Amino acid sequence: MTRTPSGTLPRMLETEDVDVVVVGAGLAGLRCARLLEDAGSRVCVLEARDRVGGRTYAAQVGASTFDLGGQWIGPAQRRVTRLVAELGLETFPTFTEGRKVFVSGGRRRTYGGEIPNLSVLQLLRMQLALTALERRRRHVPPTDPMRAPDAEALDAMTLETLRARYRLDAPTRGAMDAALRTIFGAEASDLSALFFLAYLNAGGGLLALAGARGGAQEARIVGGAHSIARRLAEGLDVRLSAPVRRVVRTKGSVEIEADGLRVRARRAVLAIPAPLLPRLRFEPALEAPRASLLARGFMGATTKVLALYDEPFWRAEGLSGELVTGDGPISVTFDNTSHDGAQPALVGFVVGRHARELSALSKEAAEARVRGALARAFGRRAATPSALVLHDWSAETYSGGCPVGLYGPGALTSGSAHLRAPEHLLHFAGTETAREHTGYLEGALESAERAAAEVLAATRA
Amino acid sequence: MTRTPSGTLPRMLETEDVDVVVVGAGLAGLRCARLLEDAGSRVCVLEARDRVGGRTYAAQVGASTFDLGGQWIGPAQRRVTRLVAELGLETFPTFTEGRKVFVSGGRRRTYGGEIPNLSVLQLLRMQLALTALERRRRHVPPTDPMRAPDAEALDAMTLETLRARYRLDAPTRGAMDAALRTIFGAEASDLSALFFLAYLNAGGGLLALAGARGGAQEARIVGGAHSIARRLAEGLDVRLSAPVRRVVRTKGSVEIEADGLRVRARRAVLAIPAPLLPRLRFEPALEAPRASLLARGFMGATTKVLALYDEPFWRAEGLSGELVTGDGPISVTFDNTSHDGAQPALVGFVVGRHARELSALSKEAAEARVRGALARAFGRRAATPSALVLHDWSAETYSGGCPVGLYGPGALTSGSAHLRAPEHLLHFAGTETAREHTGYLEGALESAERAAAEVLAATRA
Repeated sequence: MTRTPSGTLPRMLETEDVDVVVVGAGLAGLRCARLLEDAGSRVCVLEARDRVGGRTYAAQVGASTFDLGGQWIGPAQRRVTRLVAELGLETFPTFTEGRKVFVSGGRRRTYGGEIPNLSVLQLLRMQLALTALERRRRHVPPTDPMRAPDAEALDAMTLETLRARYRLDAPTRGAMDAALRTIFGAEASDLSALFFLAYLNAGGGLLALAGARGGAQEARIVGGAHSIARRLAEGLDVRLSAPVRRVVRTKGSVEIEADGLRVRARRAVLAIPAPLLPRLRFEPALEAPRASLLARGFMGATTKVLALYDEPFWRAEGLSGELVTGDGPISVTFDNTSHDGAQPALVGFVVGRHARELSALSKEAAEARVRGALARAFGRRAATPSALVLHDWSAETYSGGCPVGLYGPGALTSGSAHLRAPEHLLHFAGTETAREHTGYLEGALESAERAAAEVLAATRA
Repeated sequence: MTRTPSGTLPRMLETEDVDVVVVGAGLAGLRCARLLEDAGSRVCVLEARDRVGGRTYAAQVGASTFDLGGQWIGPAQRRVTRLVAELGLETFPTFTEGRKVFVSGGRRRTYGGEIPNLSVLQLLRMQLALTALERRRRHVPPTDPMRAPDAEALDAMTLETLRARYRLDAPTRGAMDAALRTIFGAEASDLSALFFLAYLNAGGGLLALAGARGGAQEARIVGGAHSIARRLAEGLDVRLSAPVRRVVRTKGSVEIEADGLRVRARRAVLAIPAPLLPRLRFEPALEAPRASLLARGFMGATTKVLALYDEPFWRAEGLSGELVTGDGPISVTFDNTSHDGAQPALVGFVVGRHARELSALSKEAAEARVRGALARAFGRRAATPSALVLHDWSAETYSGGCPVGLYGPGALTSGSAHLRAPEHLLHFAGTETAREHTGYLEGALESAERAAAEVLAATRA
């Protein structure tokens, strides 16, 4: 990897020639570059930031290295599981022993199982809603959601409208909101019901996405999930601090202009979050329906909270460290102690409307709110961690938010054909374009495999 | 006005100093620049295109000059009415004499009055829906929609969900769809119900927005509405072909980098369509809630159709030239004969889903569909105009669509405080930011007055 100066004004530059240029050194871009290189292509990866990894990023905090971005892998995620092993990385299980905490309207309860201990009626309604959503989502093909029965009607309503049918009461809604916010970084009112169901189906259902044991939060990676990107980048031609500004297509080649360099290739793979693509200047412009779809995507809002403690005191109290609450600002927490137990920690997510509210506060005020939420869930000791990190992904220019790009009503109806289809010399990767596990590390890898296969098929033809 | 070369790579440039830099030479930017100059400020206007006028644009077609963008003004729009007079431009009424045509499910009917002649039951339901919407919209303050009763609930649903309560049948829905599509360039499923009601209220209600006589389509401007921008630009320092790339704010000044030039000012007014703002690179980044709101805006989709004929044959048949249809591809038409009668014409709008479908077709196929729609409404003669122009605003890079930037559910809830509030040295204009007649020429002028007043108050303090 070479670092180019983050120059103020681009200078006259020579054009470098490669076979394929990849925009974005997140997991999707790096994996795609790796696959293309392995197949004999000369590949150059352009990355806007001064680091690789995109929405995965780790830093030394206290006595260990912690992920401040994506961090978990689940048992159904076979690509990332295999890749982690191939790269010589080790995994360890998320700590889940003990009872979980549920806070609703300021009232704290603990529970076992998957669903907070609501009343029998609440549980029945929750189960009814979940069963209905599960049944519906199985009929929504994640690769082509518009083929679902009632696709247009489902895309004409928000998830909030769909959910209102089940007449959930406040605590039950709160539990569901916490799960939805954490999965999407958004509110039920932000999302198209159809988009939600397709996303659920791509990831194996709501409980699989929300759960730790057996779910998408089952295991962590020693040294951090960020290690995957760092290892993938080894030996690749990655140019850091090279934000792409212009994508010019001619008949047989695509020329990409970034701050400080210019690359010409036979094909380009755009592997940045889909909602950020409209920031690039395309000449000629992207076809109108694609531009319209992309313009309608937006990123979820997530501030990740890392709280370090001298002891995992919650474990001694029989608690797993898991919290679910609709009260905010934190929606869920998990035990996040380092793999060797040396650094006890909790990880929390401030998401959706709570993330936006927190973003508007001073650092001190935001931290005070988070301390209060930790104390309400885990007692007074939780309010004074030895270190407290709030990582606001909405403030990262080249992510624009986390965990994933989202669509409100009407977007899929107008442009689902352009979710991942190539367009004259351009290919699209990134977890937003995934057909399985959209929004997860696994989805990024799935998209990379597809895009690499597209490029190889096209350039060998 | 000077034209700067649309250079391939920016070169090292000297920085020019002015008091205020305005980005965008549409109606809002030009009017704001004019007001600031009149108050003694030195102003520079940067425009991406090689022309002024933004979403107003006129061209010579057949025997007259026709607007291919915004063209009408209504009696309630006092700013634009006054400005047109001040600039020495003349207006003339839209031709509305005769019966209108309504086509539904392929069946053609003609009618007088404001609402297509549906059955008594249909009319009752339509009236019920309109009355209910009218009552609701009066409670939604366009300046601060979140102050409406039930604001969050209304912003959590699409307009389609709200409308479904009134159980309209297909012809009635079709009539309403035609009006909605033309006003917004979008489907009822694309819009937040709250955004829709606020927009309606800003413009005086649905019938005022949809109507010609007494409504927003009452009068046209001799020589085209584009003349307003052209006259406003006279004597102003407007730099064409200068797309802005970077907006750098320091403590006391804002520096704007465009292709081929660089301007430093005490304040900047950003007067481009709000959904296009995320394309600019802000250093430092815009505050997160504003960036999030802007990322969620998207442009309506409109292809404007101009069909010229040797004679206004529809008039001879007792028709006004007005068509309303939910069948598509055209949603509505009006008589668009030149002010002197020398060039008979119809103008039509292919909007929302129909615009997106048309954008995907070849020019020939798109024209054939439009000819078919004209023939179904006005008979075989209408299929063979002497000239047929289809102007697709979604294909204009620096508009991204027409008529206006839109919000789906959840956007206002998350960020309505940032619709038009200034942010450290930056002010926001453009019809999207208007408090009255949002989406219209009048709204652009209202926003310009507000932004100019903000700048003057700030720089004189």
